Order: sequence, then C-alpha cells, then structure tokens
Amino acid sequence: MDDTPGRLIRAPENFLDAAGVRRVFDEGKQGRRDFIRRAFAAAGAAAAGGAARAAANPVGPEGGDPNILELPEHSRGLGQGVAAEGYGKPSRYESNVQRRHSPGLTQTRQASVSFAPLQSLFGIVTPSGLHFERHHQGWWDVDPSKHRLMLNGSDERMLRRPMVFTMDELMRLPSVSRFHFIECGANTGMEWGNVAVPTCQYSHGMLSCSEFTGVPLKVLLELAGADLKRGRYVLAEGADGSSMTRTIPMEMVERGEVLVAYGQNGEMLRPEQGYPLRLVVPGVQGVSWVKYLRRIEVGDQPYATKDEAVHYIDLMPDGRHRQYTSIQECKSVVTTPSGGQVLLDNGYYNISGLAWSGRGKVKRVDVSVDGGRSWRTARLETPVLSKCLTRFNLDWVWDGKPALIQSRATDETGYVQPTYRELRAVRGSRSIYHNNSVQTWLVQESGEVKNVQLS
Amino acid sequence: MDDTPGRLIRAPENFLDAAGVRRVFDEGKQGRRDFIRRAFAAAGAAAAGGAARAAANPVGPEGGDPNILELPEHSRGLGQGVAAEGYGKPSRYESNVQRRHSPGLTQTRQASVSFAPLQSLFGIVTPSGLHFERHHQGWWDVDPSKHRLMLNGSDERMLRRPMVFTMDELMRLPSVSRFHFIECGANTGMEWGNVAVPTCQYSHGMLSCSEFTGVPLKVLLELAGADLKRGRYVLAEGADGSSMTRTIPMEMVERGEVLVAYGQNGEMLRPEQGYPLRLVVPGVQGVSWVKYLRRIEVGDQPYATKDEAVHYIDLMPDGRHRQYTSIQECKSVVTTPSGGQVLLDNGYYNISGLAWSGRGKVKRVDVSVDGGRSWRTARLETPVLSKCLTRFNLDWVWDGKPALIQSRATDETGYVQPTYRELRAVRGSRSIYHNNSVQTWLVQESGEVKNVQLS
Repeated sequence: MDDTPGRLIRAPENFLDAAGVRRVFDEGKQGRRDFIRRAFAAAGAAAAGGAARAAANPVGPEGGDPNILELPEHSRGLGQGVAAEGYGKPSRYESNVQRRHSPGLTQTRQASVSFAPLQSLFGIVTPSGLHFERHHQGWWDVDPSKHRLMLNGSDERMLRRPMVFTMDELMRLPSVSRFHFIECGANTGMEWGNVAVPTCQYSHGMLSCSEFTGVPLKVLLELAGADLKRGRYVLAEGADGSSMTRTIPMEMVERGEVLVAYGQNGEMLRPEQGYPLRLVVPGVQGVSWVKYLRRIEVGDQPYATKDEAVHYIDLMPDGRHRQYTSIQECKSVVTTPSGGQVLLDNGYYNISGLAWSGRGKVKRVDVSVDGGRSWRTARLETPVLSKCLTRFNLDWVWDGKPALIQSRATDETGYVQPTYRELRAVRGSRSIYHNNSVQTWLVQESGEVKNVQLS
Repeated sequence: MDDTPGRLIRAPENFLDAAGVRRVFDEGKQGRRDFIRRAFAAAGAAAAGGAARAAANPVGPEGGDPNILELPEHSRGLGQGVAAEGYGKPSRYESNVQRRHSPGLTQTRQASVSFAPLQSLFGIVTPSGLHFERHHQGWWDVDPSKHRLMLNGSDERMLRRPMVFTMDELMRLPSVSRFHFIECGANTGMEWGNVAVPTCQYSHGMLSCSEFTGVPLKVLLELAGADLKRGRYVLAEGADGSSMTRTIPMEMVERGEVLVAYGQNGEMLRPEQGYPLRLVVPGVQGVSWVKYLRRIEVGDQPYATKDEAVHYIDLMPDGRHRQYTSIQECKSVVTTPSGGQVLLDNGYYNISGLAWSGRGKVKRVDVSVDGGRSWRTARLETPVLSKCLTRFNLDWVWDGKPALIQSRATDETGYVQPTYRELRAVRGSRSIYHNNSVQTWLVQESGEVKNVQLS
C-alpha cells in the first residue's frame, strides 16, 4: 500500500467528516438491518384472525375496513418472466449494500481501496460484486485470449524448461477448488493511530472470502522442471502497470496450497480481482495474491522488491523495519452490532461476527459485552475451514445500558488474538500494517453503536 | 411444474432447432472454455528469451521486430479507479456465461425456467447472478419493510400463539449459515422421453448451490408454542400470485435443517429466489423451498395441495401416481467435457463434474470413459458437505478415439446412482420428474461432445 494511510492518521477528518458520521447513523436508523422498536409486541398480542389479516394484507388497512383483505399487487398479478439470457442483480431495496471508497483516503482512485460492507453480509462467502478492491495502478479487463503466464528460473539450474501457457492450456490442467479469506495487510490500519473509523466496513472491510479454483503452482513448476531444492523462493509478477512483484517462500508452494487461480465463487475471476489469472496464497496478506499474473520466476533468495522492502513493512519501536511478514495472524470482528448500527429496543439480539487465521483453522471465539471483563464462548458455524473465514454467533439480551462488545479469536496453533495494549507492547504505535487486535464497539444507551479504543 | 415438459417430449424440435445446436457447437469451437490445438507444443519448444518476449508481448510481434517489446496497454497505462460506491460485474469477455431460457419450452415466460450454465462453472458455489430460475407466476421485487411471516396452526391445539414477524424481527433472532444444493424436481426431465438436449446447461442446469443464512424454523415454532407431537406436518405458503403451497414433514423441521432464510451467498436473497424470505428444505426438490414465504401452518396431516397432488408427481408403469416424493436422490453429472464443448486436441484433460445427494454426503464418484465398462474413482474436492454439491475431478488422456463419458455417484447411505435401464425398470418411462440416472456424453473423433443415451 502507498503511504496514504499514514497521512490519514494525521488528518482523520478527511476520512468521514461530521456530516458523514451523522449520515451513517441516520441511515442506520432507517435501515432494514436495524432493529425496530416493539419487536414481538404486536405479534405476541395478535389473535389468530388479526394475524391472518396482517399477513394477507401487509400494506395494512390504513383507514380502510380491517375486515376487507387487500392483497398486495405481487399476490394478485403476473410477475416478471425469465429473460432469454441474463445475469441477475440484487433487489433494488438493497442498493445501500455496496462496496465503498472513502473520499480523501487516497489522492487517486487508481491507487486506492474500496471496502466490503461486512456489516451487511451473512455467512462466510463474500459476493464477488462486493469483494473489496485494492488497486496499485487501476484495474483492467484483460483479454484472456491474449494473456500468457510464463514460468522461468533466475538461472537455468533453478528451472530447466521455461514455459509459456495460454489460458486454454492452464484450464485443461488438474485443478482444485478451495475456500480462503483474503485480507489486505493494511486492513484496520487506521486504528494504529487511534482513528476510530465509524463502521466495520471501513475498519475491517479490506477482507473478503471466496471459493477459488485453479492449478496448484506446484504442478506447473514440476511440469517446467523446477529444482525445488535449489529454488527456495518464487517471484510472482503481475501484468498491470504497477508491475506488482512479491517473493513467495517455496515451502508454501510445496504444500500445494498456492494456486494459479482463474475461478472465484464458481465463475471466472472478476476484472477488479485480476481476471483472468491471480495467485492465491492462502493465509498471506492480499498484496502477495498477485493479480493479472503473468510470470513466475524460481530463485534461491528473496527478491527484495519495492512492495516488500519499502511497502507493507512495519516500523518497530527500536527504529528497525519488520519485513517479509506475510502471514495474517489470527483476528476477529463483531459485524452485528457494529459501528453505525442502531439498536432501537432492549431485548434479544444475535451477536454475529467473523474470525480467521492465516495459520490454519479458528479453534474458538470468545465474546465480551463488558469490555473484556467477562467472556462467553460463541457458536462457530460449520464448516470451519483452514485459512478461511469462520462465522460465529452468540445470544445476547441487551438491558439498555451501555455495553462494550468485543470478540477474541484463538486459532488451532493456540495463538490468541491480542488486545491493543498487548500488540503495542511489542510493535509500538507507528505501524500501518498487520493490526489484528481486539476490536471494541460501544453500544450507547441511545442504541447507537460506535467504534472506541480501550486503553 | 406445469405440464409443459410433457408437451416438449412430444415436440423436441421446439427445444433447440438444428441451427441452435449448430450455434452451440460453433460457440464451443471459438470459446475460451475449449481447448486449443497444440497445447504445450509452443511452450515446450520456447527458449527462455523467446518465452520472456512472448509473456511481455502477449499480443505477439505479428510482423514487427521480435526483439522490440510492445507492452500491452494494460501494462503501461493507468487503469480504472475504484468507484465511490459500487457493485461489481463479470468481465465483458464472459458475456457468454449466462443463465438461459429455452424458447418454446413454455408458453409464457412467467411460468418458466432459466438454466444455470453448469458447463462454465467451477467449484460448488453458484454465483447468485447465474442461479437457475423457476417461476410459477413470475418474479417480484417485494418491499421487505412490508413483508410479513405468519405462523399459525390448523387449530389451536397445533400452535398456541399465532405470530406475525417483520423482517427486522426475524433478522435479530438466532441464525445459522449452511451450504446446500437446490434442484428442481423436473431437472433432467426431458431425458425421460429420450430428448437428448444438447448441453449440460439444458440437461442438468435446474441445479444450483449456495450458502444460505436464516432462522431454523424449529426456533420459530417453539417461540409460537407449536405442539410438535400433534403437528406432524407444516404447510409453507408463498406470497406471489401462484400461491405456492407445499407440505413439509415435521421430522425435517425437528432436525433443525429447515431454515426460514433471508441470506444467500453472503447477501440478501435475490428477487428471483424469493427475496426477502424463502424456505430452505435441504435435500428436497426446489418446489418445496417456497419463495416469498408469508405463512407457515402446523397441522396433523399432509395438505394435498395442487403442487403436490397434481404436479411434481410421477406416473408409474402400473398407472398409479407416486406422490410426496420430495428427496432428491443421489446424482452426478460430468460438466467438462460435456455436450456442446469441443476437444480440439488429443492429450491430457481434467474431467470435472458435480455430485449430490438429498440424503446426506456424497461418499464416492466413479467415472467411466468407455460407457460404463470400466470405472475409475474420482478425487472429491473438500469440504464434502451434507446435501450440498461436491466437485469431483479425474485425470484423463484422450487418445482421439470416440469415448463415452459417465459419472456414477454413491452417497453415505450406500445408495448408488442408477443407469437409465435400472431407473426405467422401476419407474417406467412416462415420468417427467425425479430423473437421477447416469448421464452419458459422447466425445466424437472430431472432438465434438454430444448427449447420448445408452440403451
């Protein structure tokens, strides 16, 4: 990522101004995803006859004779027919569920970000139309019939038979399909600087999860006669103008996990995600998932490219740089209730969120509603997959008093997601990247939920 | 389903005419998803330098000086930026991947079908934009703020507290997310009449698979004080003009599997899939997954509604009707190579397909390339989930001679997908619904793949 988030930390008012924050809350109050007052009351009091009328007549009698049923148009008329051919779209009532750019976050829209609306999503699959975007020099719709992937070595000992593949050639090879999360290394980066961005779309929305399909890179390297003993690293290079290049350790490739992927959620990759070819590097930060992938080189040492030597590094308290940190450590976030949402009534709520780990499966998620003083273990939705999002849910009855909601994930290695205090004790506070600390949402007595950091 | 497929069996020329079949083959020859001649040859012969030039210059020197690199526009220029807000779309090069209606299949487009392009899909998730459609009176984009769900009993003993829920009330309740397939009972229906429709989109494309999110119906019935001992059945009713009603056995509800769902693949249901609310009945034919769900009634006997007494039934050889058959039995289909595709060269191919069972997990898939004389066991992609699609893959080297490709799935109950001969021995040949027999694709010497039925 470029240095824009650093600028932003110094000028948080650029992110969303006061009017923007107010708009988020107002939309929340009117929105479907919020919780209307008097839930259950009307339903519980209704007699069977009244209930039947209400269901048959959802637009309500509104002054008319309540004994006369007025069926809505969709219960009486002919609906829309199937099209001769088509590709469906969401409901017009869901037009508020969008990925969003933040004006002022970056100087250009080509080297920028759009965030996935985590607060509106369910389960673990991110619809491809809502997958977060991170471009370094804009996105392209590359002609797949002209796209090529080259494999070569830094010298002849590393790879015996340099090869060039067309898309057709790649797509007839052995393929696998796997569910994985992808998270930008800069996700939740603004929080390092105590910028409590208002919603989880903006705080955690550089995160998505898909079913990816492609050829294991190991298969291609074996075809090309790569020497996996000498060649302990590969360089991945993209075809767009940013010439994105990243070093990947060969041990990840040897595990068969790294994919040369063309499929995402059942169809071809979307252009914003590197159509027609992207590297999938499970558990590793998004910048290594090189888009518009055109070349893989096998070498015997890390390549120290710009995007790993200068960017995506962490400035440590002693002034040194932490480089080549690629694994996204265990992390979680509550998505409902979350910043910008409004609880309009006391009573039962389903606390729901996402957990993930770049090192394997999520083992457990604990949830606190009192800022970490007490914890309850959440229910994990199945399947729990390695290096994939895991959805958790927990019952909660809100008593109407202020509540501090947190989640804390533990992965199968036993690693526990740290608090800010714990993370800063090691990493200081001058980083932009690799923030995986516990997130806190404050539910105020008004029901408005806001992002806060506990000291 | 209405009786249109029956008509179609008597007039197969209405399905796709000769020109239509030719178009399918011609598109196949030009398409990305086909396999170009001389795969590997050029790549294998390329020296490192030439390969580098080819990769850097994918549009090809085409008469120019091959030593001068001409980078494509997307490797030099600024691409498109992120939008302030947006919902992404597939590449313009994928415009051929659509769900498709078949002219002549039904008399109106409101009581009709569009098929999912299985031959172009990967993995197990069906993109919501390509999910098959089956409407009985057209589709609607229902206003979720006005939609209601009522629970009642056939009398007071069945359910003590009739209730009406708004969407907001439903969405704050405990939810689960699960991956399941949905298949129309009429899928592959034309094959009963020996109508070998040309592609697997048309033969098997009333099949899709999604991650669904919703409230277990059991939770709602317990809230409303239903008597699960007396009330052994529920009736599900939709709000659209078709007044779709289906009986669901209470034992399915008791298992916690039946969901009142609002989410699909991470976002709200699409309008064509019953937005804002549909019943999810895992393993059961699609007609029971009532869309625009507005009412659940608890009763003590099956309801014998039109759509279970007259439609979605099978005419047996002895003249009796087979009714209330709701489970979709174990089935599979090879999607690559499949009808309408063209193999343009001998050599290696990845045979890929889908398997599923309404009774649980797929245990095993065997694949034959000689019309069932010999079988090899395919590799199943993980996770293998209950009542969900399972993707299988198998290595195959085509020798250029005619091949008869089949897949045969076995589920965890030990049930083995039948051949046509086996299925007809029990069910005769006058059915429309519930055809789960082994599908055969003939690869001709020309490379063209067509649908055939073995006697």
